Amino acid sequence: MGNKLTKRNEDYSKWYNELVVNADLAENSGVRGCMVIKPYGFAIWEKMQAGLDKMFKDTGHENAYFPLFIPKSYLSKEADHVEGFAKECAVVTHYRLKNAEDGSGIVVDPDARLEEELIVRPTSETIIWDTYRRWIQSYRDLPLLINQWANVVRWEMRTRLFLRTAEFLWQEGHTAHATEKEAIEEAEQMMNVYAEFAEGHMAMPVIKGLKTESERFAGALETYCIEAMMQDGKALQAGTSHFLGQNFAKAFDVKFASKEGKQEHVWATSWGVSTRLMGALIMTHSDDNGLVLPPKLAPIQVVIVPIYKGMEQLEAIAEKIGPLLKELRGKGISVKFDDRDTHKPGFKFNEYELKGVPVRLAVGQRDLANGTFEVARRDTLTKETVSENEIVQKIKFLLDDIQKNLYQKAHDFTYDNITEVNSYDEFKKVLEEKGGFVSAHWDGTIETENKIKEETKATIRCIPIAAKNEEGTCLVSGKPSSKRVLFAKAY
Amino acid sequence: MGNKLTKRNEDYSKWYNELVVNADLAENSGVRGCMVIKPYGFAIWEKMQAGLDKMFKDTGHENAYFPLFIPKSYLSKEADHVEGFAKECAVVTHYRLKNAEDGSGIVVDPDARLEEELIVRPTSETIIWDTYRRWIQSYRDLPLLINQWANVVRWEMRTRLFLRTAEFLWQEGHTAHATEKEAIEEAEQMMNVYAEFAEGHMAMPVIKGLKTESERFAGALETYCIEAMMQDGKALQAGTSHFLGQNFAKAFDVKFASKEGKQEHVWATSWGVSTRLMGALIMTHSDDNGLVLPPKLAPIQVVIVPIYKGMEQLEAIAEKIGPLLKELRGKGISVKFDDRDTHKPGFKFNEYELKGVPVRLAVGQRDLANGTFEVARRDTLTKETVSENEIVQKIKFLLDDIQKNLYQKAHDFTYDNITEVNSYDEFKKVLEEKGGFVSAHWDGTIETENKIKEETKATIRCIPIAAKNEEGTCLVSGKPSSKRVLFAKAY
Ligand SMILES: [Zn+2]
Ligand SMILES: [Zn+2]
Repeated sequence: MGNKLTKRNEDYSKWYNELVVNADLAENSGVRGCMVIKPYGFAIWEKMQAGLDKMFKDTGHENAYFPLFIPKSYLSKEADHVEGFAKECAVVTHYRLKNAEDGSGIVVDPDARLEEELIVRPTSETIIWDTYRRWIQSYRDLPLLINQWANVVRWEMRTRLFLRTAEFLWQEGHTAHATEKEAIEEAEQMMNVYAEFAEGHMAMPVIKGLKTESERFAGALETYCIEAMMQDGKALQAGTSHFLGQNFAKAFDVKFASKEGKQEHVWATSWGVSTRLMGALIMTHSDDNGLVLPPKLAPIQVVIVPIYKGMEQLEAIAEKIGPLLKELRGKGISVKFDDRDTHKPGFKFNEYELKGVPVRLAVGQRDLANGTFEVARRDTLTKETVSENEIVQKIKFLLDDIQKNLYQKAHDFTYDNITEVNSYDEFKKVLEEKGGFVSAHWDGTIETENKIKEETKATIRCIPIAAKNEEGTCLVSGKPSSKRVLFAKAY
Repeated sequence: MGNKLTKRNEDYSKWYNELVVNADLAENSGVRGCMVIKPYGFAIWEKMQAGLDKMFKDTGHENAYFPLFIPKSYLSKEADHVEGFAKECAVVTHYRLKNAEDGSGIVVDPDARLEEELIVRPTSETIIWDTYRRWIQSYRDLPLLINQWANVVRWEMRTRLFLRTAEFLWQEGHTAHATEKEAIEEAEQMMNVYAEFAEGHMAMPVIKGLKTESERFAGALETYCIEAMMQDGKALQAGTSHFLGQNFAKAFDVKFASKEGKQEHVWATSWGVSTRLMGALIMTHSDDNGLVLPPKLAPIQVVIVPIYKGMEQLEAIAEKIGPLLKELRGKGISVKFDDRDTHKPGFKFNEYELKGVPVRLAVGQRDLANGTFEVARRDTLTKETVSENEIVQKIKFLLDDIQKNLYQKAHDFTYDNITEVNSYDEFKKVLEEKGGFVSAHWDGTIETENKIKEETKATIRCIPIAAKNEEGTCLVSGKPSSKRVLFAKAY
């Protein structure tokens, strides 16, 4: 019995890969770097989408859809932007196949070459700002608050399921504002929305911060981010929100007439989270037995497994379960009664453990006689017997308690693994022996950042928003610094 | 005043194009043949998606996601399939851009040529059946009932917003079954689901039928379809469901062990509807004043426009409207109170008429004094005064009644414009003078079908499922025929 996963402390990376595949979340496809998101994994992503989409709409955003293809000339209009994406672009050059003249099969028709190559969108700033030029004339058209759910492609050489794939699913918000102040407030608001989603829905604590110049989005003046700590102590950037200044408005000539009648360039933001969040979710909570899901994102919140011999016993159980299913569903709880006769209870227990179902009920003959259920919770792997009169209340309590417990556990782990250091030796020692995030003074230069990265593989994850002002000296250069930043090895 | 659209009877096609753009549904992008779906249009599409997605899940289907790219060799594995799609494929040949050595700008890097070209999916049978080979081993793995919401690309030379675009959004269901009978039943079921959605949500009557061999999906043994009649009498294919036999299972070597332990090829279906439904919705109900939306798909079901002078009057109205908004929203009714002070009531009336909002309330000072609302319905353009005690009941009645009325009106129009003919002369006369669908006997040959198409531009829309057996002779060849089929000019 058991799910036979590699243990986390043996090989965290192998454990992750096995879990993603065995729990039916995703798998590699026949197309290099592109994944198939399997139904169970996709059901979790749908719950994430629903939660985020509501938060976007509650903050005044609307959804729209822009073309998959970006003409090469559009991508090239903002210099930093094209520099950032040119090396990983999938390029469409032709629009037709034909039968080879020598009968050797299907070939690309050389007569169907596009006049201008099209890039499969790696992100949509350029095509969207080309559109906004038509939509924005006056201050009355602002703010323009739009989001898009879409697939994007970045031709990564080394890929890992959910964490880094050539194609991934995401949402990208693109907003336009009349003033710099308003655009900065929007970028900050969306970082806060992401943090609220990560902590409230995913039960994943995050640190809100600013990226350093070298880690900023290509074309941004400021990148806000949320960073989460995985169980192996490595950092995962879970979402970013960019203040783009007037860069794209200038590149695409998007101006508006202000209240005073002056022509001014528009101020912009963009912000996104992706199926990478699936990887973050998995690595934040799961254990050596399989996936552990926070109830708010679990496609199945409660599973009921009957223990029986013969159809008569199964029917007696089904009769008892019927009203319970109805009551739970009426309360908006997603519950599955697994009455398959092709698999034994032990097999089912393993399967739901592997798939991270938060609450499992089992009902056998003795339970029927006693009016009880055996109730197991996935987070603590504990079991107890609960009377049928209390079962609905118990389930409601457990779903709430598991959500809170997962957050608290991850929170404690994260903050236990943020270490303040005051010398470069200590920095290297902590990074090597303890791992996690290292909080240290830095002189603000790219040179120091690069030196640390080359020597330790740690990068500056962010300058935390919550960082206090504190006089100090840079670890490496000894130059003065006014606040600590967070370093870590990262996914 | 007025929305200044071209009138339908002057130029239906021009009316459609203007309406799509002016009602903020969609517009052409800078990428040839690719559209931008604007927020208001996308909100309608989201309502369609939600309605369909629920119906798919209620019939046991799960969502998943498969790669955007299809290796050329996969597409080539099923001969009819590649033949059907080769002429409209967007082909990715390179994965990197670089700075031109002569400094002339950004160019495709010739060193980054893919070993095998990738096709941007025109439909996903091939990549999905390549995946199903790994997922299906035993009869216990069947049926496999999966749907995908995705973008697809077919490089059409002549495009029109929503009706035919190079990129479009759709859903594609792909199911695998142990028996031929079960697969045929699935294909029929999904045609019925589409018909139910079209009639129940879109208020659009459809004819269910079978495609003739020449109009079948590339790779299908049978194509079921739903056909709707637009206001200009032309047919629009609104959804298709294909019985694929064992074609893809054989091409991708997908076998299962039956209960008896024999290795057998799997039976398949696929089915899809797309953003083309947006075009169908628009052309079924809208009028010379603008869009007309069935309440079930309207992003805003009720709009309330205050008529006032000065902030004091507006505040008095807002105070009265507050509890009404709350009550309506509590009943799941989507309502907007348009208190913008930048636009006059007349401007707003026009805007919501153009955008097809089903119910409009206006409240002025006299209404406040009398405890009344002016209520206008979009479908009939009629107005009445309703007392505040009856307003909620009235709104509920109207949303229901408008939905029914739109269906009935479209139903009557459709069936008034299906004409039975018994000679080719009559056929041509009806097609030219009355239009609509022509019901006639046909000898079952492609030759006759092609001759009629060449001479009249009418195609066989379908062999209706409901067609009675009736002895007759083919219009053109005089050969015997046992049932009538439907001909029409089509979108
Ligand atoms: Zn950060
Ligand atoms: Zn048909």
